[in-house]
Amino acid sequence: MSLSEFSLIEKYFKNHDNPSETKNIAALSIGDDAAILNIRENHQLAVTVDTLIEGRHFLQGTNPADIGYKSVAVNVSDLAAMAATPSFFVLSLTLPDTDEVFIKGFSEGLFEASAEYGIRLVGGDTCRGPLSITIQASGWIETNRYISRHGAKPGDRIFVSGELGSAALGLACIQHKKSMDPLLEQHCIDVLNRPKAQIQLTPLIKQFASSCIDLSDGLLGDLKHILKASHVGAKLDKQRLPVNDWIKQNNDFGYALAGGDDYQLLFTVPENEVDKVYKMANQKKFKLYEIGSIEQQGLMLVDGKTNIDLTDVNQGFDHFEKK
Amino acid sequence: MSLSEFSLIEKYFKNHDNPSETKNIAALSIGDDAAILNIRENHQLAVTVDTLIEGRHFLQGTNPADIGYKSVAVNVSDLAAMAATPSFFVLSLTLPDTDEVFIKGFSEGLFEASAEYGIRLVGGDTCRGPLSITIQASGWIETNRYISRHGAKPGDRIFVSGELGSAALGLACIQHKKSMDPLLEQHCIDVLNRPKAQIQLTPLIKQFASSCIDLSDGLLGDLKHILKASHVGAKLDKQRLPVNDWIKQNNDFGYALAGGDDYQLLFTVPENEVDKVYKMANQKKFKLYEIGSIEQQGLMLVDGKTNIDLTDVNQGFDHFEKK
Repeated sequence: MSLSEFSLIEKYFKNHDNPSETKNIAALSIGDDAAILNIRENHQLAVTVDTLIEGRHFLQGTNPADIGYKSVAVNVSDLAAMAATPSFFVLSLTLPDTDEVFIKGFSEGLFEASAEYGIRLVGGDTCRGPLSITIQASGWIETNRYISRHGAKPGDRIFVSGELGSAALGLACIQHKKSMDPLLEQHCIDVLNRPKAQIQLTPLIKQFASSCIDLSDGLLGDLKHILKASHVGAKLDKQRLPVNDWIKQNNDFGYALAGGDDYQLLFTVPENEVDKVYKMANQKKFKLYEIGSIEQQGLMLVDGKTNIDLTDVNQGFDHFEKK
Repeated sequence: MSLSEFSLIEKYFKNHDNPSETKNIAALSIGDDAAILNIRENHQLAVTVDTLIEGRHFLQGTNPADIGYKSVAVNVSDLAAMAATPSFFVLSLTLPDTDEVFIKGFSEGLFEASAEYGIRLVGGDTCRGPLSITIQASGWIETNRYISRHGAKPGDRIFVSGELGSAALGLACIQHKKSMDPLLEQHCIDVLNRPKAQIQLTPLIKQFASSCIDLSDGLLGDLKHILKASHVGAKLDKQRLPVNDWIKQNNDFGYALAGGDDYQLLFTVPENEVDKVYKMANQKKFKLYEIGSIEQQGLMLVDGKTNIDLTDVNQGFDHFEKK
């Protein structure tokens, strides 16, 4: 979504008056990874929706099972970003024709993900049209224990849950724009097609994170959502970004900074909680990477002795690709 | 959706094993107007999803406000068919380009419907692609007071909430396939573009109906869903179908029997409750039309002294259009 479109959506959808009888249902509404709804005592429901469109979110010819898996995983990732536990989802599937091979493969991948993440398909709709999949997923969280984009404070450390840029590099490989060692190439393509929702981190994030987001559009773009919502800035250490060997060797960090589809979690932790985070991560064998800190303002990328000011850079892959 | 596609969806999605931890969440799952979820004491959540696609569910050039209104109304109609009270919805909007005129108009229609039906937009997703709108709507109902497609019994009377076939006739007018008195033509187009979800009937349906469905695909097709789910048959009285003057004068009942997009409710009532239904309808000024009865099996259309056996007719407009 372009920035202008983002602001149009905000203008026409975000601050609209709502029916008075529903005033108190939403603790958190449009503008985070999920809405948070007050619908039962002691618990809130996190609700998210994502659409995947052929040619935009997956390439034509992608294995139907991968499409099914990813459709569920990206929604569960949004729930994980709120520290919510996945519960149920509904599916709207738009198909260009009746294709049993597609439907069979798609359903296999979808149910593989639903089993892996403990989330149940409860209903759906099918119609005819250009291939697209919309999933609306819901998960539970104890009242007001959700983590939003709003809580980051100067001094907080910034963590990510795993490697950055491999999915975008996988896409470049499929499109024959890059090539590399076949094993690494396959790994990158797998990361693109079968992103893992990082729900194992939910207990840690719920306990320690001051803010959290899932990385669907790229590190810088998604970090900026936190910075904007929390009214803060950030400093990132380029050398601490978890990237694969190809990115390191080619010094091609555009993939890690602006490449989408990683579906890792990015979260911030107050300085005095950092030791406990490392302790829990050690005990539970979580991978975690500390990549920077929250500052008063701006967005700075530190590369050894060089500081690159990214405050006014509109994220976008081209800005960071090695020329 | 074609029958073969329907059976494929049933084959690959309906009876799949689900994660054990979510076993008890769904009281009613895939295959009704909405899923019914056990998520808080004394109340269940009805959850439905519908996608509207340009060129299929609305014509290119349709007023954006009408598209916004209809997107909400058709989902609220599914909730009304379960006797659930609308509460909240999420929106996934796929747009071919950034078009402020469209977004503005669409949002106006959407919020007009959300105010009319007392349902709140709580979250969403926007992406780039062929114009389509997916809305997932949720509503509340006291535990096990929902009305499904399963409860119709021989002897029950069949009611509909309003005129049938006008929406399909409106589409035929827009496509210049039919013409008529301009006032009636405009009425039919309005019915097509601004369907009214019949939520005023919820108290009556909750109290008296043995089964209920909303008429989105046409009277016969949707009635057959009830007949299949309830393992019964039906008899319809053609002369009691509520249709506009043009359909009557031209004896062109295909529109009423098989035309989609009416969004009236069809429901069945046990014979011993029928008087109470008429009494409540009179008191509250509800329009109701008794159009037939539930039988042991088959599907018969009675036209004066003629009986037309529709048991094996696959619904579809062509079968009923006057030659």
